[in-house]
Amino acid sequence: MNVGVVGGYRCSAAVYNAAKELGALIAKEEWVLICGGGAGVMEAVCRGAKSNGGLTVGILPSYDGHEANPYLDVKIPTGLGYARNILVVRASDIIVAVDGKYGTLSEISFALNEDKTVIGLETWGIKGVVKVKNPQAAVNYIKKRFK
Amino acid sequence: MNVGVVGGYRCSAAVYNAAKELGALIAKEEWVLICGGGAGVMEAVCRGAKSNGGLTVGILPSYDGHEANPYLDVKIPTGLGYARNILVVRASDIIVAVDGKYGTLSEISFALNEDKTVIGLETWGIKGVVKVKNPQAAVNYIKKRFK
Amino acid sequence: MNVGVVGGYRCSAAVYNAAKELGALIAKEEWVLICGGGAGVMEAVCRGAKSNGGLTVGILPSYDGHEANPYLDVKIPTGLGYARNILVVRASDIIVAVDGKYGTLSEISFALNEDKTVIGLETWGIKGVVKVKNPQAAVNYIKKRFK
Amino acid sequence: MNVGVVGGYRCSAAVYNAAKELGALIAKEEWVLICGGGAGVMEAVCRGAKSNGGLTVGILPSYDGHEANPYLDVKIPTGLGYARNILVVRASDIIVAVDGKYGTLSEISFALNEDKTVIGLETWGIKGVVKVKNPQAAVNYIKKRFK
Repeated sequence: MNVGVVGGYRCSAAVYNAAKELGALIAKEEWVLICGGGAGVMEAVCRGAKSNGGLTVGILPSYDGHEANPYLDVKIPTGLGYARNILVVRASDIIVAVDGKYGTLSEISFALNEDKTVIGLETWGIKGVVKVKNPQAAVNYIKKRFK
Repeated sequence: MNVGVVGGYRCSAAVYNAAKELGALIAKEEWVLICGGGAGVMEAVCRGAKSNGGLTVGILPSYDGHEANPYLDVKIPTGLGYARNILVVRASDIIVAVDGKYGTLSEISFALNEDKTVIGLETWGIKGVVKVKNPQAAVNYIKKRFK
Repeated sequence: MNVGVVGGYRCSAAVYNAAKELGALIAKEEWVLICGGGAGVMEAVCRGAKSNGGLTVGILPSYDGHEANPYLDVKIPTGLGYARNILVVRASDIIVAVDGKYGTLSEISFALNEDKTVIGLETWGIKGVVKVKNPQAAVNYIKKRFK
Repeated sequence: MNVGVVGGYRCSAAVYNAAKELGALIAKEEWVLICGGGAGVMEAVCRGAKSNGGLTVGILPSYDGHEANPYLDVKIPTGLGYARNILVVRASDIIVAVDGKYGTLSEISFALNEDKTVIGLETWGIKGVVKVKNPQAAVNYIKKRFK
């Protein structure tokens, strides 16, 4: 199963740590981690996943993948700019949104529009997002949803 | 100049009428109307534009354009599904969002993420959207912004 | 009906003139002309179409449409780079390929792969392309095909 | 490094075996295998890669990835149909084309258009493709090219 994690390329230390914990928990479940491949929340979640031996995939905006964080097993440069946000959503069976700005909101709304479940951790308060309090609660929700 | 109008494929009669008025005003300014090409708000705005001799373009989700409304001069089938939302935004110099659900929200947030101005008429109350009271106010804002 | 014309952004004077003639003939039939919106064959075919009052659409690689030729009624910037080639094909009911290099070949093959008819004028000799001798023959073929 | 292998979803037993051998050799070099994720050449190359413990990625046409072959570590459903061919090319540092029809030709030409090296094994004889005689020669070429 592919779990997509979306969030900004900049974030606070607290958000970074939460995303890292989320990544570690996703890896523990042996889910494939899909993300936008960059810095901030994307780096943190990949870093956490790799700390637990997970498999990490970054779908990148550029042609050459220069913006890739160092914790990616698979880099997918697209040359599409932020249009790659849609591919992050389409590649994921479920989405966890962590913090984030307009780019993250575009992924949340695009996912909801395609009837995908979006779990929210300290992110946009959009109707339809399943709000959770911490990374463990996000993972618990996914386990229940797909068992 | 290309003005993009985004909104749902279903809407109330009041929203339909507002979108129709918006289309007529856009055509009066001789701006090209870009939209998703379907029913609801998209149909209304095209219908209004055609009533004033405007030029209407629909960027459509399907391969064959079967969902096109009858007021399009140019049909652009994409076969991309709702990923075409991004193309509606990219093709537009400025966006007016009218009503709408998650699809519209994806267009609003994608536009803001790419630093495009979004004018909002009875739509999502997202920070950064320029809220206006009626179609004429939307057009006035565009004229001022691009004069 | 949408007729797509694909070809290089650089071409000889002879190819330019043939493309211009093709555009004029397409406009005479009141078909919408779809192309990549740039220089060379794309410019020539739009120029010809406008000389006959046709409607011209350019699906452009850049975000801002700076590469647009001056004969476009509708500019569709995509920010997708040459990935926009696929959109030119998807937007067209039939394709005419004129001269061209690898970009044109990608459009020819993508069209054939999606079961669209490709008419070829002095272009790649790929099996499946309907070879014609001049612009008038291309238009005659389209008229017969869609009557 | 990402090596993209493109080819048809149907192929002869001889082509299947060559693609399987190619996959095994790619895995031996510890390159990530990128492909379209389906049957035929795509299945064979993934199968070969997995026989050597390689990492396999399939960029799939559908929304739900139902067409995925059983040898993929990472499934990337796109919902873009054959427009995903472009993503296979963009995600790859170098392309090996094996056999194939129009879809493969679209990938070859799109890659050449974006200045990527294309190695050809029993495939389209397009100018610019580096023709090789067998899978080992393809891998030798890549090693030399990227050393």
